Formats: sequence, structure tokens, C-alpha cells
Amino acid sequence: MRAGVVVTGTEVLTGRVADRNGPWLAERLRELGVDVGHVVVVGDRPDDVRRALEFLGSTDVALVLTSGGLGPTADDLTAQVVGDFQGRPSAVDAELEQRIGAIVERLMARRGWRADPEATAAGVRKQALVPAGATVLDPVGTAPGLVVPPAEGRGGPVVVVLPGPPAELQGMWDAAVAAEPVQRALAGRTELRQQTVRLWGTLESQLAATLREHDAELAGLEITTCLRDGELEIVTRYAPDAQAAYDRLTAVVDEDFGSTLFSHGPTLDELVAAAFADRGLTVATAESCTGGLLAARLTERPGSSGWVLGGVTAYANSAKEQLLDVPAELLAEHGAVSPEVAAALAEGVRARFGADVGVGITGIAGPGGGTADKPVGTVHLCAVGPDGRQEKSLRLPGSRSAVRGRSVVMAMHLLRVLLLGGPPA
Amino acid sequence: MRAGVVVTGTEVLTGRVADRNGPWLAERLRELGVDVGHVVVVGDRPDDVRRALEFLGSTDVALVLTSGGLGPTADDLTAQVVGDFQGRPSAVDAELEQRIGAIVERLMARRGWRADPEATAAGVRKQALVPAGATVLDPVGTAPGLVVPPAEGRGGPVVVVLPGPPAELQGMWDAAVAAEPVQRALAGRTELRQQTVRLWGTLESQLAATLREHDAELAGLEITTCLRDGELEIVTRYAPDAQAAYDRLTAVVDEDFGSTLFSHGPTLDELVAAAFADRGLTVATAESCTGGLLAARLTERPGSSGWVLGGVTAYANSAKEQLLDVPAELLAEHGAVSPEVAAALAEGVRARFGADVGVGITGIAGPGGGTADKPVGTVHLCAVGPDGRQEKSLRLPGSRSAVRGRSVVMAMHLLRVLLLGGPPA
Repeated sequence: MRAGVVVTGTEVLTGRVADRNGPWLAERLRELGVDVGHVVVVGDRPDDVRRALEFLGSTDVALVLTSGGLGPTADDLTAQVVGDFQGRPSAVDAELEQRIGAIVERLMARRGWRADPEATAAGVRKQALVPAGATVLDPVGTAPGLVVPPAEGRGGPVVVVLPGPPAELQGMWDAAVAAEPVQRALAGRTELRQQTVRLWGTLESQLAATLREHDAELAGLEITTCLRDGELEIVTRYAPDAQAAYDRLTAVVDEDFGSTLFSHGPTLDELVAAAFADRGLTVATAESCTGGLLAARLTERPGSSGWVLGGVTAYANSAKEQLLDVPAELLAEHGAVSPEVAAALAEGVRARFGADVGVGITGIAGPGGGTADKPVGTVHLCAVGPDGRQEKSLRLPGSRSAVRGRSVVMAMHLLRVLLLGGPPA
Repeated sequence: MRAGVVVTGTEVLTGRVADRNGPWLAERLRELGVDVGHVVVVGDRPDDVRRALEFLGSTDVALVLTSGGLGPTADDLTAQVVGDFQGRPSAVDAELEQRIGAIVERLMARRGWRADPEATAAGVRKQALVPAGATVLDPVGTAPGLVVPPAEGRGGPVVVVLPGPPAELQGMWDAAVAAEPVQRALAGRTELRQQTVRLWGTLESQLAATLREHDAELAGLEITTCLRDGELEIVTRYAPDAQAAYDRLTAVVDEDFGSTLFSHGPTLDELVAAAFADRGLTVATAESCTGGLLAARLTERPGSSGWVLGGVTAYANSAKEQLLDVPAELLAEHGAVSPEVAAALAEGVRARFGADVGVGITGIAGPGGGTADKPVGTVHLCAVGPDGRQEKSLRLPGSRSAVRGRSVVMAMHLLRVLLLGGPPA
């Protein structure tokens, strides 16, 4: 059973806003045993939205999900376009209009914003337009969602219309799935499993060779490999009757790539967080070129306040000396970007915060600041803990953002090895 | 003149990797005067990729760009599928095979990775498959790009095949545009301008009312509005002959929303960075709940080392006291999450780093840690500088990630107002 997704919004199409809804919906559908073939991103133009619906309708899907285009402005047109596509003309739902009006009033009162009542009313009326016979999903923000089956006697997919803001879309998901037309469309689904294996230090082509060699034993698996941030991720989707083939795959990968296999599922961040929590250890970070990215990444996890004590972003040398006790002589002798200073940063922040583990990162993210000796992309890292230390020196290619991003990934791997062992960073 | 984009990759379709190529390509095409109608994200399945190409071919585009699916593994199929779609069967290009082989060899030597020569050769051979009559674009990583016109006597778009890793795709862009079939397809283009105006504190529906009122004067403008992080962004695209209408739009927005208009173009981050650089001021950050995100955002900009001295992430109270001189009595009396501690954090970090401006953020990002008095989402911010201080207390809705993100946006607005004045944060 398959579904398609239409993400509307010129701001998404042009990249001013990254689409978070397409992937989120694809993952929820997979959990329901529904496979997504295409996500179409389209601007706020009725003709283009209609064409996207027609295209997905032609790909034999039982469900189409749309996100966005439910706001109060003239360029928000999804509800009407979907209604027309399904042969169900739209009209204002008076009861819904009242409910949305009350929500908007509360919202504006809370923010203390001025509002012309007539303009507000026009926006509310637009948001209360409902295709005939559609199921209304209660608003989470101001926009209601819609479940719009094809008109009587017509074929084609059920279309579920959801708002663009991710929190609103996600808050409406359970109600959308529970709606009767969606349940009917879902009747034909079967379970679809997904498993992930992660390698650190294996080339994609080596893995490809192994997979080719064992091709016959792996029938029934949809295996995709993806090299991301230096990590080779093997994601496999399969129906329950292919479980034996999947078990064979993990055995084969273990045999050929056991020395680089660092996870049978959890992400790098999950592994590191669990290791700190399980061992009851704390951490503090000292960052130069990554400017707080490592601390931000560690603290992104709920509950991280239990094991992250904090960190220092020390761009200026004076900050390295005064806040992290890096000796001035060390800075003078080796320069701020050196393995010695990375280690001193790690030791210094560990002592200052009284943490079990300290991490130091120093480098040149560019685009300026490089020299012949220490070109842009030179980064030194050190993680110190109760069991010893892990160090790494890198020359990373790419942009400022790429150098910073890869440095943080490497710091996470150093923490992984320091706490858990396994494939070297 | 229009174009379409196909982004391939099951890892993108399922959200394991965020698509950065679709938006980037859409923006480059707009600069060339080419309008993108649809971006189709599709998994690594030949049938689905083919259908996406057929769909875009049916929408009257002169150009289709694809990203991804050029790697050495069996699921990388874009080149062959595009060749078949254009009526141009693929074959190994021996000279290209040699070049890719040399690149892969260097790459593996640099990383010190082991590799089975036969497997490597098979991967290289796959990457050297070229549709008959296609133009090869030099590899930036290991994968070459392709420009594939329709076979002689066939109609349809020119297809440009680009690799998935953003750095490789971007590095190949100029060569792709310069290729003769692309230049021929681009012959019909006209200039398309894009301008942005940014408001802070206006409801989308109010703006919609103003736009409706002036509808007739604004003909020829494609106006899209987008509420993001509390900022209302008005992006307008238009042909040069609609410049007068655009000037009228900015006048109308100025008149009705002058008190919330904070930018006629530059982003919030650009405004803040320029203000620090122009005034020769430095900044340091003290973060609790945002855990380094503000420092990471400020240092994302090239050249930020000229005005960012650093920052402290102080999760633990002991760190707030010892590293930032927040008095223990203040913490005891008001609690760590209070306006008083936000101010003390700002003052403390300013003094410790010797910075002109200090920013303090303290709050409860959740999901745990909330109380009746101070629920999850309670955040206090303070920015102190030579011209005074800006403070704000918030109760933010949403997830941990949403609370952290919105807090950082608010901190940026406090810096904006502190340095530049304008609409209050």
C-alpha cells in the first residue's frame, strides 16, 4: 500500500524554510505500513498544486497527504484546490468560523497585538472554508485540517489536508489517522519493518561489493546505504516474512565490517547520551572553532541537564587563558590551533566545571585565518575522562559550516570511543 | 521559463537526511530567471524516479535537474534511468573510468582505509556509465555529473544530473550552466527579481487585509508571506516591468506596518553581525537552557571571530556562580530561572570576557523541570551593552527544540534592538 505527500509553500520551494513535514509524514506512514513513493514540494500556485495532486493520483496511491496553504492569506489555497480535485466544492462552515474566530481573538489578546476586526474576520472566514462532505480536524493552531474523500462515484485517493507549521501538523496526526475515510484507505496495509546498522570507517563501494556477493540471500530486503558525516548508514525495509533475510544481512555485515560497526540501531547521539547516563558521568566542553555547536548538540537531548554541566566557547586567546587555564606559554609555543592546546582546553574545562569528562576543540573553520602550516580545515580535538583520553587531528575539506559540522561529529565519536570503546574515531 | 527538480534518495524521502539541494537549485535557477514549479523527492527506485521525470516532463519545463543516485552502489541508478528517459542508452566511458579510479585511490590512501580492489573497480565502473551523447561534468567528489538532452528528434526538457552531496553538487553548478545544451535551454529566460521585507509583531491576517485593499496597484507581483520564528517575511518575485508595483508595495507596507518593519532585505543575523562589525563592538554569551545555540549561531558567520569573544554554557548552578559570578544569594532568592539571574548572567559574562555586550539566557526548555510557578517554556533573557539593556521574559509553547530555538531568535532580536533600535523585541 502506497501514499504520496504534497508539501505546499513558496517559502519551502525556494528554501527559505526547510521542509520538516514531508519526512515526518513519510516516517509516520511507514510505521503504519504505508510506503511513500514521492514527496512533491510545490509553491502557492493553484495550478501547480492541482498538477501535483493529479500526478500522485496517477501513481496508484490510496492516500495523499498535503501540508501547508491553510492560513488566512490569499495565497493559502490548498483546501479549495483539494476540494475541486475531489469534486467537492467548498463553502464556509459557520460553526467552524466561530471556533476559529474565538481562537484568533485569544491569540491576539495574549500577544497584545493590534488588529483590524474586519481584516481578522475575512481571514477567519477563509480558514473556515470546507469542501462538501469533508471531515474537519480540530485546529491545533488556527487552521483546521481536512479529510477529503473523492466525491461519490469517483475513484482515487483520500486526501488529508494538514497545516504547514510542524507543531500543528503533528498535533493533528492522530485525529487524521482515526478519521473514518483514512481508516478505510488503510485497510489494505501490512507491516513494514525498518532497521539500521551504522559503520564508521568503511567505504560505500566495499559494502556494495559485499551486498552484491550475497545478493541471492538478501531477497525481499530494500537496502539503502547512505554516507553521511563520514558515517555509513545501512537502512533496510522489509515485510515480516523477510526477517530471516534481514538476520542474514546483519550476520554478513558483522563478518565483513565488524571492526567498523558501531551501532545496530541507535544513533551516535543516542549512544553517547546513554553512555553518560548509564555510567553516571558528567561532561563539560571547551570549544573554539565550533563555537558552541558541540554543547548545543549535547544539550539538544531531553534530560541532558543530568550529565552536561556546561561549556565554554573560547574564541579569544584571553578567554582560553582566563576561563580555561590554558597556559600563555603553551599558546605562544604551539599556537592556539594545536594538539597541545586541544588537550589543555579539555583538561581545563574538566577541572573548571568539576566534570568527569572534558572535551577540547580548536581549529580554523575559515574562510579566513588559514596559513601554509595550518590551512583552513585544520582541527585538533581531545576528550579526557576517567579511563584515559582520545585525541584526533584533522584536515577537513569544505566550507566553514562543513568544517564546524564535521568537527562536532568527530568530537561525538571521540566521546563514544572514550566511554564505550568500539571502532576508533 | 520553468524548470523542475528531482531529488533522489531514500534517505531524503524518509527524512534521515534533510534535502539541501532542491532549495539551493531553486534559488540558483531563480537568479538565472528560471522559475521552479515542483521539487519531487523520490526514493532509490527506478520506476519512481522515471515517473517523477515523466511528471515534470509533462509540466512544460525546459530543464529538469536531478540530485543524487550517482554513487557506486546498486541503488544508485539515476544516470541510467535518465538515459533511458531521454532515449539514450548508457555505456562505460573508459577514459572517465580511469579518472574516477585515480580519484578513489587517492581518497582511500588519504583516509588509510582498506579496500578490496575488485569491489572498488566495480564501483568505479558503475560511476563511469554515461548515456550516449551526454556531456560529462568533471567530478568534484568521485561522481561525475551529466547533461543529457533528449535523443535526436525527441522533444522534452534537457536533464542535468548532479551528485547528492551538497558540496559536490554546488561545486559542479557553474560547469552545468555553461554546458551547451543548458545554454540553449536557457535562451528563453527573462530576469526575475526577488525582494524581501521583514516585520516583527504583525499578524499575517492584518497584512493580508492590507494586500487585499491594494490588490489593483500590486498587479504583476507574486507576493508570498511566511510567518517563521515569529517573524513575518514578505517575499515578492516580479519581472523588471513590475518594479513600480513593487515600489508601491514597499510604500504601502511602510505606511501600515512601519512600526514593526525591521528590515528591507537583510536577515536578522545579517543585521546583527553588521551592527557589531560597524560599531566595532564585541559580544559574549551566557546560556543556560539554550546550551550554546546562541554562541553557535553567532559564530556561524564568517569573520565572527572579529566580534564574538566567546561564551559560557552554564547548566549547573555551580558553573553560573564560579564562571560567571552570579551571586549564590541571587540564585537562592529568585531561582536560576528568573529575570534577575538572566541579568546577572549577562553582566557576568560581559565582565569575564571583557566584552562590550553581554547576553544572558536562562529558562526551562523541558520536557522535565517545570513547576506550577515556572512551567516549561519559561525563559528570561537580558542583553547589556554600552547604550543600556534590553530584557524579555517569555512563556513559550512547544517542544524542547522549539523553546530553545525561539529563545535564540528572541536573543537575536534583543541584540538587534540594543544595537540598532527599531521595532521592540
